Amino acid sequence: MKFGVLYGIGVGPGDPELMTLKGARVLQGCHHVFVPKARSENGSIALAIAGRYLRADSLIHELVFPMSDDSGELSQHWAQAARSVSDVVGMGEDACFLTLGDPLLYSTYIYLVRSLREKLPGLDVVTVPGITAFSAAAALAEFPIGEGRQRVVIIPASDDLDVIGEALAGGGTLILMKLGRRLNKVVDFIEQAGFLDRAVYVARAGLDGQQVEADLRKLRRQEQAADYLSILLVHTGV
Amino acid sequence: MKFGVLYGIGVGPGDPELMTLKGARVLQGCHHVFVPKARSENGSIALAIAGRYLRADSLIHELVFPMSDDSGELSQHWAQAARSVSDVVGMGEDACFLTLGDPLLYSTYIYLVRSLREKLPGLDVVTVPGITAFSAAAALAEFPIGEGRQRVVIIPASDDLDVIGEALAGGGTLILMKLGRRLNKVVDFIEQAGFLDRAVYVARAGLDGQQVEADLRKLRRQEQAADYLSILLVHTGV
Repeated sequence: MKFGVLYGIGVGPGDPELMTLKGARVLQGCHHVFVPKARSENGSIALAIAGRYLRADSLIHELVFPMSDDSGELSQHWAQAARSVSDVVGMGEDACFLTLGDPLLYSTYIYLVRSLREKLPGLDVVTVPGITAFSAAAALAEFPIGEGRQRVVIIPASDDLDVIGEALAGGGTLILMKLGRRLNKVVDFIEQAGFLDRAVYVARAGLDGQQVEADLRKLRRQEQAADYLSILLVHTGV
Repeated sequence: MKFGVLYGIGVGPGDPELMTLKGARVLQGCHHVFVPKARSENGSIALAIAGRYLRADSLIHELVFPMSDDSGELSQHWAQAARSVSDVVGMGEDACFLTLGDPLLYSTYIYLVRSLREKLPGLDVVTVPGITAFSAAAALAEFPIGEGRQRVVIIPASDDLDVIGEALAGGGTLILMKLGRRLNKVVDFIEQAGFLDRAVYVARAGLDGQQVEADLRKLRRQEQAADYLSILLVHTGV
């Protein structure tokens, strides 16, 4: 029997209107919809964004991926997710997998496809790109990311200030994603490096609790628990 | 009189279905549509992508931006473009500006908004992000751009092999955009650096003449005139 097709759909950063027309159309044709969520008691953000484009009879399959640095624990969850998806596409049914932002930029989708290709080497996979969170952040803050021949460096979830320092020294624009509790430490570092007035902070672009802040000093005063879905954009001026 | 609003719409890399629902909706509501084109005798690629979402009575204003490294010549064209747009929004009419890919990533939109803000400081600008060409290239090639805590470096239109070499040495994924006639030189360099089998080439994603090539040796054999709208994605393996 021929396998079903797996469609990996980037739902964008938060605003349902920032989904692509292709993503919405493909989702309308999908009966089986797999959605990632961070913990079993929470809902899926990707599903909340794409909800209005679901067909009435769609079957939602939740896949739990913990926020963990434990590669063994993560591997188990990816293997479990790949089993769940292969149970469906292996029966000849098409399936969609929804993912925040763009499917091939720091998304669980990458590991899911890798696991699936090991189990079902002939599987047809169609990836529908999505708006990245940093494009949405740049749009909200009217912050040019890349100009002329300047380079752009993206660093996710970095605890390593040396890595950030090297990137700042190299010129162009720096995009720091998935900051979470690292925020205050990173803001301190950017201030010491002299770039605080060339940076903007955007959290939860297009979602409840969206925040756009051009004065990073205010972040410290507000002593917030920084969101995982947060971004710093920094111009080096070179 | 109140100014009209300028909407900057990223139309994505080529496939009209990769426009966002927001981009299509905003364009449907726009009477004045400004489109960039590279030379006066050619059509606008951005307009060709977004054409199906135009309203019947829309007025298309073409803005010519030469493919030039001459900053004086470019400045003149940006100033002229800003005058054309300000003539419309200054009369209280809304206007859309269409741009390939994402408006704030290596787009003429950046210079247009900067010139406009000098002329009309109070202007309302709404930027609608778009799918970047590299997200579409990654989707076509099923090439994971960023994983885990790896960094991603984007370098546009680079003639400087030292800059590319430094980026490769730094690890993560390298995205080389707008290659054009630099392609052969850059492919030679990537081969010498030992990364040829970790790279893919994608040109004109979603446009006529689309090409996805995982074996970069074939590019050389085909001795093509490389397209300006071309991308190399390279994993360093670190």
